[in-house]
Amino acid sequence: MALRPVSAAEIESLAIGAWILGTGGGGSPYLALLNMRKLYREGVVVSLLDPKDLADDAWVAVVSNMGAPLVGQERLTDPRTIARAVQMMEEYRGCRFDAVMSLEIGGGNALQPFMAAAVLGLPVVDADCMGRAFPEAQMTSFAIHDLTMYPLTLADVRDNAVIVARAASWKWMERLSRKACVEVGSIASTCKAPRTGKEVKECGILYSTTKALRLGETVQSARRRHHDPVQAVIEAERGQLAFRGKIRDVARRTTEGFLRGTAKLDGLDDFRGASFELAFQNEFAVGWLDGQPRVMTPDLICVLDTVSGDAIGTETLRYGQRVSVIALPAPPVLLTPKGLEHVGPRAFGYDLEFRSVFP
Amino acid sequence: MALRPVSAAEIESLAIGAWILGTGGGGSPYLALLNMRKLYREGVVVSLLDPKDLADDAWVAVVSNMGAPLVGQERLTDPRTIARAVQMMEEYRGCRFDAVMSLEIGGGNALQPFMAAAVLGLPVVDADCMGRAFPEAQMTSFAIHDLTMYPLTLADVRDNAVIVARAASWKWMERLSRKACVEVGSIASTCKAPRTGKEVKECGILYSTTKALRLGETVQSARRRHHDPVQAVIEAERGQLAFRGKIRDVARRTTEGFLRGTAKLDGLDDFRGASFELAFQNEFAVGWLDGQPRVMTPDLICVLDTVSGDAIGTETLRYGQRVSVIALPAPPVLLTPKGLEHVGPRAFGYDLEFRSVFP
Repeated sequence: MALRPVSAAEIESLAIGAWILGTGGGGSPYLALLNMRKLYREGVVVSLLDPKDLADDAWVAVVSNMGAPLVGQERLTDPRTIARAVQMMEEYRGCRFDAVMSLEIGGGNALQPFMAAAVLGLPVVDADCMGRAFPEAQMTSFAIHDLTMYPLTLADVRDNAVIVARAASWKWMERLSRKACVEVGSIASTCKAPRTGKEVKECGILYSTTKALRLGETVQSARRRHHDPVQAVIEAERGQLAFRGKIRDVARRTTEGFLRGTAKLDGLDDFRGASFELAFQNEFAVGWLDGQPRVMTPDLICVLDTVSGDAIGTETLRYGQRVSVIALPAPPVLLTPKGLEHVGPRAFGYDLEFRSVFP
Repeated sequence: MALRPVSAAEIESLAIGAWILGTGGGGSPYLALLNMRKLYREGVVVSLLDPKDLADDAWVAVVSNMGAPLVGQERLTDPRTIARAVQMMEEYRGCRFDAVMSLEIGGGNALQPFMAAAVLGLPVVDADCMGRAFPEAQMTSFAIHDLTMYPLTLADVRDNAVIVARAASWKWMERLSRKACVEVGSIASTCKAPRTGKEVKECGILYSTTKALRLGETVQSARRRHHDPVQAVIEAERGQLAFRGKIRDVARRTTEGFLRGTAKLDGLDDFRGASFELAFQNEFAVGWLDGQPRVMTPDLICVLDTVSGDAIGTETLRYGQRVSVIALPAPPVLLTPKGLEHVGPRAFGYDLEFRSVFP
């Protein structure tokens, strides 16, 4: 298997890039990054595995920190919790994992497999199954490909541990795991249904770790050269600027294990006089320009600090921030009719026909 | 092992007696009784096992139908669901059960182990761990004896299955399993933490199946002889009549997986002019006579039809019923200081010092 050691500097880039791909969610990478810095200072080096080098019958642990981002800000991150979810799955299924991968490459969940891998001595697969972040279990390429949704293991910081052994559907998996997550405080470490190497190669979103890492490097490089990081991201990723302005109002509530709400923006620069509204459920789902839908899921809606290019999460939006709303292209699997059933605007309760901002 | 076959007639008596011991809860035995009648017509005979004959290292499956009694009335009972919870536990723990027993001898949950036993070809242990019915997981003699509370398996009718693999405390076990139960519709079949024969013998409430069966026979015998069944129960079980009257009002709501509410009664016969109020959470918890606490948990508060002696559940109470409220003695373990912490009035949110109606 072709393993590539990931440097400490690359972990920093990954955190920046993943936070942009988080489209507001996936949890702030900050606490996970602090943990990774500490682990690297202690001598840990995590390796990245090319998914093409996974054996068909290899077992891959798909991990994520599940819950409401606002709570994830408050409850400190411990790498052992996500490792415990993986170990629970090994015990439950009687299998040994060959590698760990991310459920979603967006936000702190890009770093969760690195924390698990560091504790367990496993490599991280260069892939995820969202290509961004999404709030619910059925919003993955694995679900779109109709792979089995169970079992799932869930661990919290108090020694509670739940296994969803079977679920009647992906929605039931979401409901059952969400309730357990909410009950332990709206943040829990989870290991999703184990995947074979073959499944990852055929149904995963490949090389998304590298993509996040590269995106972070784009931002860092622009900063070093005193270029505009937002423009650099748009150019490097073939994105679009959807709006630029100042946040006028944020309404936010943590409910049913999610962070839901809206943000209102007043235009600046080319957008002076215009207004923009963003709706989110952990991640940004729809953006309206002067009342008209301008950008919608699964296109990636990323809110970046206009000056630094840093992503701003739905839990850290606040009055007065100068932000640029950019759209980035979604992985193709999400744009298929089946994909849109799982992650299109209607899947979030918006009666809108999906229209991409990308031709 | 000394096994005694239980006759179809005894199953009928058990249903009557268990419903009285249910103190309003444990679920109406009616649907389970219909299932048992069908199984017996098909030739099934379930055997009762004297707990003293359990080997110390035998494994016993402790089962119950968990949830809100009002929902249990509406969702039909299938013996395979409770059997599936037991099989899940066998698979999860990699053990084979030697027998099944009831979590609570009150209500339909007295018959759940018989249904599981019929499907799985196992005997039923003559014991439970409440000696009545209670609404929550930590309200058992096993919890009072500080036995381990996990794992728990939970199955529903839709092919959802959840395992609570670890819980930080009995209360956490209650919370986690309750949320899963609520999510699948407030009724689920559960297999609690497996118990060894030694644990059952030392910490169970023994011979409670026989007690329920005998109680049912007392009612049936009184009816046949045109005697007063309520008086017969009081005499046979050293009970007390707490009130006799007519139900004036019932307030009932299904919430958080429980059936909660109050019933108000106007006195009849010796109680004419007096009023009585009952509060319940699945089971009757406290009864007030003219505003003064008259009887409270863990003393058994049983509401019986004044004429037939049939128990009336918290889900079937209704305006106009002529009822007798009787108190029966609680198993001694529930009356210890530790027992009262788990099942005394304060455990239900009533700021009352426990006072038994029995000297």
